[in-house]
Amino acid sequence: MSTPYVRLDKHAAAVLLVDHQAGLLSLVRDIEPDRFKNNVLALADLARYFELPTILTTSFEDGPNGPLVPELKATFPDAPYIARPGQINAWDNADFVQAVKATGRRQLIIAGVVTEVCVAFPALSALEEGFEVFVVTDASGTFNELTRDSAWQRMAAAGAQLMTWFGVACELHRDWRNDIEGLGTLFSNHIPDYRNLITSYTTLTAGR
Amino acid sequence: MSTPYVRLDKHAAAVLLVDHQAGLLSLVRDIEPDRFKNNVLALADLARYFELPTILTTSFEDGPNGPLVPELKATFPDAPYIARPGQINAWDNADFVQAVKATGRRQLIIAGVVTEVCVAFPALSALEEGFEVFVVTDASGTFNELTRDSAWQRMAAAGAQLMTWFGVACELHRDWRNDIEGLGTLFSNHIPDYRNLITSYTTLTAGR
Amino acid sequence: MSTPYVRLDKHAAAVLLVDHQAGLLSLVRDIEPDRFKNNVLALADLARYFELPTILTTSFEDGPNGPLVPELKATFPDAPYIARPGQINAWDNADFVQAVKATGRRQLIIAGVVTEVCVAFPALSALEEGFEVFVVTDASGTFNELTRDSAWQRMAAAGAQLMTWFGVACELHRDWRNDIEGLGTLFSNHIPDYRNLITSYTTLTAGR
Amino acid sequence: MSTPYVRLDKHAAAVLLVDHQAGLLSLVRDIEPDRFKNNVLALADLARYFELPTILTTSFEDGPNGPLVPELKATFPDAPYIARPGQINAWDNADFVQAVKATGRRQLIIAGVVTEVCVAFPALSALEEGFEVFVVTDASGTFNELTRDSAWQRMAAAGAQLMTWFGVACELHRDWRNDIEGLGTLFSNHIPDYRNLITSYTTLTAGR
Amino acid sequence: MSTPYVRLDKHAAAVLLVDHQAGLLSLVRDIEPDRFKNNVLALADLARYFELPTILTTSFEDGPNGPLVPELKATFPDAPYIARPGQINAWDNADFVQAVKATGRRQLIIAGVVTEVCVAFPALSALEEGFEVFVVTDASGTFNELTRDSAWQRMAAAGAQLMTWFGVACELHRDWRNDIEGLGTLFSNHIPDYRNLITSYTTLTAGR
Amino acid sequence: MSTPYVRLDKHAAAVLLVDHQAGLLSLVRDIEPDRFKNNVLALADLARYFELPTILTTSFEDGPNGPLVPELKATFPDAPYIARPGQINAWDNADFVQAVKATGRRQLIIAGVVTEVCVAFPALSALEEGFEVFVVTDASGTFNELTRDSAWQRMAAAGAQLMTWFGVACELHRDWRNDIEGLGTLFSNHIPDYRNLITSYTTLTAGR
Amino acid sequence: MSTPYVRLDKHAAAVLLVDHQAGLLSLVRDIEPDRFKNNVLALADLARYFELPTILTTSFEDGPNGPLVPELKATFPDAPYIARPGQINAWDNADFVQAVKATGRRQLIIAGVVTEVCVAFPALSALEEGFEVFVVTDASGTFNELTRDSAWQRMAAAGAQLMTWFGVACELHRDWRNDIEGLGTLFSNHIPDYRNLITSYTTLTAGR
Amino acid sequence: MSTPYVRLDKHAAAVLLVDHQAGLLSLVRDIEPDRFKNNVLALADLARYFELPTILTTSFEDGPNGPLVPELKATFPDAPYIARPGQINAWDNADFVQAVKATGRRQLIIAGVVTEVCVAFPALSALEEGFEVFVVTDASGTFNELTRDSAWQRMAAAGAQLMTWFGVACELHRDWRNDIEGLGTLFSNHIPDYRNLITSYTTLTAGR
Repeated sequence: MSTPYVRLDKHAAAVLLVDHQAGLLSLVRDIEPDRFKNNVLALADLARYFELPTILTTSFEDGPNGPLVPELKATFPDAPYIARPGQINAWDNADFVQAVKATGRRQLIIAGVVTEVCVAFPALSALEEGFEVFVVTDASGTFNELTRDSAWQRMAAAGAQLMTWFGVACELHRDWRNDIEGLGTLFSNHIPDYRNLITSYTTLTAGR
Repeated sequence: MSTPYVRLDKHAAAVLLVDHQAGLLSLVRDIEPDRFKNNVLALADLARYFELPTILTTSFEDGPNGPLVPELKATFPDAPYIARPGQINAWDNADFVQAVKATGRRQLIIAGVVTEVCVAFPALSALEEGFEVFVVTDASGTFNELTRDSAWQRMAAAGAQLMTWFGVACELHRDWRNDIEGLGTLFSNHIPDYRNLITSYTTLTAGR
Repeated sequence: MSTPYVRLDKHAAAVLLVDHQAGLLSLVRDIEPDRFKNNVLALADLARYFELPTILTTSFEDGPNGPLVPELKATFPDAPYIARPGQINAWDNADFVQAVKATGRRQLIIAGVVTEVCVAFPALSALEEGFEVFVVTDASGTFNELTRDSAWQRMAAAGAQLMTWFGVACELHRDWRNDIEGLGTLFSNHIPDYRNLITSYTTLTAGR
Repeated sequence: MSTPYVRLDKHAAAVLLVDHQAGLLSLVRDIEPDRFKNNVLALADLARYFELPTILTTSFEDGPNGPLVPELKATFPDAPYIARPGQINAWDNADFVQAVKATGRRQLIIAGVVTEVCVAFPALSALEEGFEVFVVTDASGTFNELTRDSAWQRMAAAGAQLMTWFGVACELHRDWRNDIEGLGTLFSNHIPDYRNLITSYTTLTAGR
Repeated sequence: MSTPYVRLDKHAAAVLLVDHQAGLLSLVRDIEPDRFKNNVLALADLARYFELPTILTTSFEDGPNGPLVPELKATFPDAPYIARPGQINAWDNADFVQAVKATGRRQLIIAGVVTEVCVAFPALSALEEGFEVFVVTDASGTFNELTRDSAWQRMAAAGAQLMTWFGVACELHRDWRNDIEGLGTLFSNHIPDYRNLITSYTTLTAGR
Repeated sequence: MSTPYVRLDKHAAAVLLVDHQAGLLSLVRDIEPDRFKNNVLALADLARYFELPTILTTSFEDGPNGPLVPELKATFPDAPYIARPGQINAWDNADFVQAVKATGRRQLIIAGVVTEVCVAFPALSALEEGFEVFVVTDASGTFNELTRDSAWQRMAAAGAQLMTWFGVACELHRDWRNDIEGLGTLFSNHIPDYRNLITSYTTLTAGR
Repeated sequence: MSTPYVRLDKHAAAVLLVDHQAGLLSLVRDIEPDRFKNNVLALADLARYFELPTILTTSFEDGPNGPLVPELKATFPDAPYIARPGQINAWDNADFVQAVKATGRRQLIIAGVVTEVCVAFPALSALEEGFEVFVVTDASGTFNELTRDSAWQRMAAAGAQLMTWFGVACELHRDWRNDIEGLGTLFSNHIPDYRNLITSYTTLTAGR
Repeated sequence: MSTPYVRLDKHAAAVLLVDHQAGLLSLVRDIEPDRFKNNVLALADLARYFELPTILTTSFEDGPNGPLVPELKATFPDAPYIARPGQINAWDNADFVQAVKATGRRQLIIAGVVTEVCVAFPALSALEEGFEVFVVTDASGTFNELTRDSAWQRMAAAGAQLMTWFGVACELHRDWRNDIEGLGTLFSNHIPDYRNLITSYTTLTAGR
């Protein structure tokens, strides 16, 4: 078995958000913009909901790559924020690695733009150092599907686990009874179909 | 020329939102849910922004079709709201037609679920009575693309103008100088790529 | 306006099912087989539900084209059944045209296999003789999407109205109050998403 | 060789149907609804046909997720039915695991909604405990193809075998001569193209 | 009605094959090469089968556009063959127009490469002169689907009828009894699914 | 016939390039960026090659929409350049209309970003004033295919002719003999497949 | 490295064609019929060209599955032909396995219909017995792409090498100089684009 | 872990460009021509930019395969250029292997046409000899996506790392500060979206 089941644990996991910058986002074309924006914000919301240590990093944010999207800054006002002076692989930046290690977490949930560089490079480096790596594929974007497929293949071959934000949330939460309303709200805010289910359910059971 | 240019005029237009109900939305599969939700809310926001008379209607909202999505109710608390007791074509409901005519508007901007029924039927009826009809294609949804294409063809053949919410907003606004910030905010809230442009622009020009 | 709104009327409409034969169905590749089978049966069920005169016809059913699909035979045991000895355009068969005219209906709802021949030829011929023609696009199939698009364009240009079975059912029914349970059953049997809505609704309201 | 050939054996296999609930089904958008409904019912029919021990489970069926689809209940009236009070991963529910182990089977055929959670989590857990796991990909559904592809990759990397219901049926049956009519009926009921072959064949050979 | 039904008549029709040249074919990307080759040869075969006057023309065949594909030359050894010295619109070449008019036919069946130029230009010119024009969409090819869709729209808007080779054959033949074996052979040679039907049918009925 | 053949004439045509601005281009997602860039530059090159009067215009170029792409500026250094202060429909800007009319041309070739607004609005306005309008569909871009299809339908219904840059070039040139090398160079620079044909041809005939 | 490079050797390889039957072919929908027919015939032609031992087998050919396609019978008149009386996995048929082993070849090139059963089952069985297995993916077909992807994943995970007929031909031939004309003819007969290259090349160099 | 992270190093890497010939390029249909041309030239530019030893090779360039595309010749005037007399796998040509080994590099970046032969064969051979192989998937092309997917699977299973040219450039560069302008120019020349970001950025910051 090349990659045994490694299960996310909310006490062992940290989130790395890499280069979700206003300029770079215009490069993302393997996923529709409304959906991508929603996925990135959903990942941010779940990181906050599960109180996972979260690290923000950007590449060259004073140049054409542009600033970090403001919603992420606003969601994590106190998170370590490493504006890399030039390193393309975030893992080549000592401050970033130090921030990661300072969390004390061994499971890294990574998303970013663009997938084959900003996500794949630190994911591969982290795997090399023995971390358990979970790539959030739907909160990561790149130029086109061909590029994405190549990047996924490379990361999976090296042992990364490919997940999506919804799977991450479910694996972290484990049991609805831990907080029904909290998880329901997260889903309702980021899954229109689920919100509709809740709307209909709430309406029908209102008078009971 | 089968359909001459009829230009939307914010003093002549009204908006009809037909059957955007929590249950019916689960039938929509010709457009991705995140995008569809955004398009419907964008249309609602532009209706309010341009202060267009807006009419809400639902079909059988106490049954499986489910309640109107709460965001639309919240956006138009004082709008005429016609819960049709059974008529499938909203135009067969006298209250609805009366509400439309009470606006005094001759241009009808229509969107709804599902396209070939809840949108097409009143659109065709309104055309028959001499109204100018503008279908907001991206705020209307249905079972699949084959169905949508058939519905579009039928409405276009009868003289409806097919538009999307962005085109509607631009045609109503006419000139950015009427309100730069207002239109910019509308776009920023509903077009992630545009929001990114504004974020980068604002950051770069902040110190000037 | 090239094609004004002509509204289906259950007292004026007849259904023509052309060449849904076991062999010919293997040629249909513009629509997925499970969906196509469902659409054809849905159209048959609605014809029976609204008690529309229905005419069945086949082409060369003793040869490789194969027999009419048994479900259609079973649904309309007493319908006129014209096994054409060779005419490709059903309208070239005098018995078929006579059967159509014997219904006394002026609105013809047509579906069949393959779209650009078995549907388009009689549709165009009927339009030429002044009938109102409604093509059920999703209960008609052909070799590929390119072929379908060409066929639709030709029929629409000649004045046919393109609809799908769901739209036909809704336009014929007009008002849910005419028979809520009957229409609901039709939809529940042929629209999985609608069936799910009903299942949830029924369960939640069971105890009330 | 990461995953050697493990062949399904009707005396060693059990079927787990996880969370095919009326509400959750509205989330499934990686597969067309008519096809998905057919695939799920085909899997149920084959489980019954091969007399495989089958276990049903649901998540929160009194809430928005909705009740199990009635057809599954009806097909397996006596099957263990575990309504989980909150565990997202069915394998975290002791009753479920006990029911699985009580079958005495070592091969688990799993399908459910949504793929990356309700299927992947118990599949990965079962692999970890040494079961042979066969995921029925076409009777499992989720939000979109990106999500599905990530989920498949994760399960395959851990050693699950990806199959579809037709392959499962063929691998269990092994030899047509075990029951020609039984298998033929199963295929005829769930593969429209195969039904057409049989219709033509039967008609042509009827008189012989 | 913008385009009334004009029915192909084998005594009134001629075929124009425009610029199916070995070099130009490498530009065709809106249709898969195996299918396109088959469609073009099917159109050639039907032209010969129905003994329709056929005219071949090429553009610059000594340059990079390359020679006419040899199969077409071989199928129509005695057809008028106009190697245009430079005119892009074949209708601008007097020899070509004279050859068309010499056929005495008023219905022109046109196919060629690339659709928006080599097909659309003479089609539009012929319509202008009062010919009835039938474009064989699946034996015409171009750079991509966007280009094709634009070209179709332009020709249809001007009154051309869009058909495919199969529809053309059926409309010309009218009745299978005119020559069952001849038409069957044409279909068997160019429609793999139909050939399979015939193979199965012939085998099953061989002994009768 | 709704739209008779109107043939482009290089002595009657002018080109309008509307809002190809660096920021707005990030909104274009109905066409792949490499192809779109090539198409826009091909249109610019053909305008220069045929010496067509060309007019450039931008919307709010000092804001987030960004500056005109530099290549267009460089290609037409002396062209009228109207930086609109706010009008969304370029035709609402008196300077723009005056520049158009000053060309003395009655055929307008229009391309721009985004299709349903920056192209459709002036196209519809120009049609209303009696100009012949040719939309270059592949040098115009917008948010997605649904939006594009709606925009095309609206313009076509009003009488615009939909073309692509290659068709425009061919219709303007009419006869290769007018300038074989010039047209060949234009194609070679913007059609990779054509360039390959020329490369092979030139190599093989080099020694002759 | 899970699957090291095993190179096809024309002295070590045999070809197994499994269940390409007239009836079963109507089930194939993951690949367009013209292309699929061409690929299967190309594989047959290359098997004959390289004089590879070839084995034909069918399943239930007297029933609805239908007879082997006649072209394959005609290409290999003397090949072992095993009409299996009922075994679904050809490897369960002793005659078939004996025929395979009688070739003395250790490399098995397998194609068939449908991929996940008729190809995957014997491929997996052969791998288990130590054969080197090469699946010809484009001469194998099945119900849809989801099914195909699952089947490929399963076979690849077990060590099969996925190839297409063109790659197989090239790997067997190794050096054009072994027979330029022979390989060129094979490609010209089955790759329309290659045929065009040869046509142009031959024409241009004819006079030299 | 089947394929650990091997990181490209500009002092250890060489580039192999295999069979990008004018004729063979007409076979490439899994990637749009404008994009493919751009990707190949981008790879060439990055090879020159990073001063990587580069080797060119062609197959049968005097025959229908045609000459190497001139841009590659021009970019690498002094590179080893091996016109193979017949070997299909470049690695079977002793001069080619010698040229590779003469570079002293152990990391091979390979791209070519067609993917499953001209790229896969030498990639697999090089892996066998212990080289680290990086396939540039988006600068390699083939007949269709099915073929490409099979080829990728085979190479990945043997240990090749799948990358795209952008990822290669980023992994080689490591840190923007090594040469901001150089890398920026490379991206600006080959990524239209990035060029737009730079255009807007430069304009807005011009006056500062």
